[in-house]
Amino acid sequence: MEVVTRNADYQYRVEVCFTPGQYPLYAPEMGIVVVIDVLRATSAMVAAFEHGVDRIIPVSTVEEARQYFDRPDHIVAAERDGEIVDGFAYGNSPLAYVDRDLSGKTIVMTTTNGTKAINLAKDARMLVIGSFLNLTALGDWLLHQNDNILLLCSGWKDKFNLEDSVFAGALMERLLQSGKFGVEEDSSIAAKYMYLAARDNVMGILKAAPRRRRIEQLRMHADVKYCLTPDQSTAIPVLRNGELVRLTENIAVP
Amino acid sequence: MEVVTRNADYQYRVEVCFTPGQYPLYAPEMGIVVVIDVLRATSAMVAAFEHGVDRIIPVSTVEEARQYFDRPDHIVAAERDGEIVDGFAYGNSPLAYVDRDLSGKTIVMTTTNGTKAINLAKDARMLVIGSFLNLTALGDWLLHQNDNILLLCSGWKDKFNLEDSVFAGALMERLLQSGKFGVEEDSSIAAKYMYLAARDNVMGILKAAPRRRRIEQLRMHADVKYCLTPDQSTAIPVLRNGELVRLTENIAVP
Repeated sequence: MEVVTRNADYQYRVEVCFTPGQYPLYAPEMGIVVVIDVLRATSAMVAAFEHGVDRIIPVSTVEEARQYFDRPDHIVAAERDGEIVDGFAYGNSPLAYVDRDLSGKTIVMTTTNGTKAINLAKDARMLVIGSFLNLTALGDWLLHQNDNILLLCSGWKDKFNLEDSVFAGALMERLLQSGKFGVEEDSSIAAKYMYLAARDNVMGILKAAPRRRRIEQLRMHADVKYCLTPDQSTAIPVLRNGELVRLTENIAVP
Repeated sequence: MEVVTRNADYQYRVEVCFTPGQYPLYAPEMGIVVVIDVLRATSAMVAAFEHGVDRIIPVSTVEEARQYFDRPDHIVAAERDGEIVDGFAYGNSPLAYVDRDLSGKTIVMTTTNGTKAINLAKDARMLVIGSFLNLTALGDWLLHQNDNILLLCSGWKDKFNLEDSVFAGALMERLLQSGKFGVEEDSSIAAKYMYLAARDNVMGILKAAPRRRRIEQLRMHADVKYCLTPDQSTAIPVLRNGELVRLTENIAVP
């Protein structure tokens, strides 16, 4: 049951969309889209910018990624079903980008969920990348924006996933506290509750999740621990002309 | 990231699908589907069987419902956007069916979300109707079934809603405690967490929800309170040849 009303006690909305497939239902009236794929695409993107990469080109297909193989200073990364695609040296592990200097480099990346979500939302007024790695920096920046914000979870093959939703809930909690932002959608409230249940023990709640058991089987402990550690970076990747670059003061908000 | 594995420590799966649009992603391998529309279609259905109705015919469109107007002993109900459709005497309020004897009657019902979800899942091996009204009876019955169970939330116009998900979490909690059922999907775990957060105060968590504020504006306090009160009935509506009837010992499980 629904009656279309709007509460006047906040200026802008912040909402959570749990899966890419539902994006068209949530996109109307949204100006800024935050794409979230905690395990692992958006964590890897933030890690790469933290380590100096010039730009990241997100592509939808493995074939598109292959076209960049012979270009100088290009790192070409492709992940499907949690594994590096045959013939590629990189997948979606953020640990591939730490302990090195990526300045002058371009990463071309295609992943199962994250780059799909980016492609879906590429026509938003602004598209930025979120992960636990840049949680506080991204929250600070979002708090200063004057627009409706959609937190778009990449999920798993269009199904709900827990880690993206908990992260969205963390941003939600921060933005709602300001009083500047409010919600209209039940999904947004649910994400906040999930974060409140998980915040003292994000690893614990994920251990209870079936997908977490699969992650253990993939022996990705180091990756998961890295991806769930907040505030390792102040980098905010932003989509400009189909490429992700690091948001700086010089990039005017359109 | 995902690796297809199956834990061997349970016999059957119980999963939660948050919205009808995601049903095709969750339906494979599921034998029993529980359709949930707490506010208010499935609550009204259980209330009607509790008060003796013979059968309920769920139809997809208002036009289909109109075709039953002149039939004797038929009650024709149509709800859209939370309101009774013009020209109809009944919508989806369960309170329309209490304090009366409905034996010998047929209800024809079309609603915004609930009957849509029923129609989507009509080809499941078994389709039953869940609401807080029959929570314990339904949980008892499900515990004795030997099949995978999908809890299908009707949501709101294909978006996630809190009350259906919290109810699904209540069933989930019960079924998981048995050890007979296990989960593979993160949505199922999230529903359980939502229920655990809400169970001592379901009304409270819904008050925090934006939709709840809209409900207040519709002045549906009495309806909402009724729909959130558990265990008012032992009726389990089941779909048979396109009609909902009350599950009895005589209805053999196919």
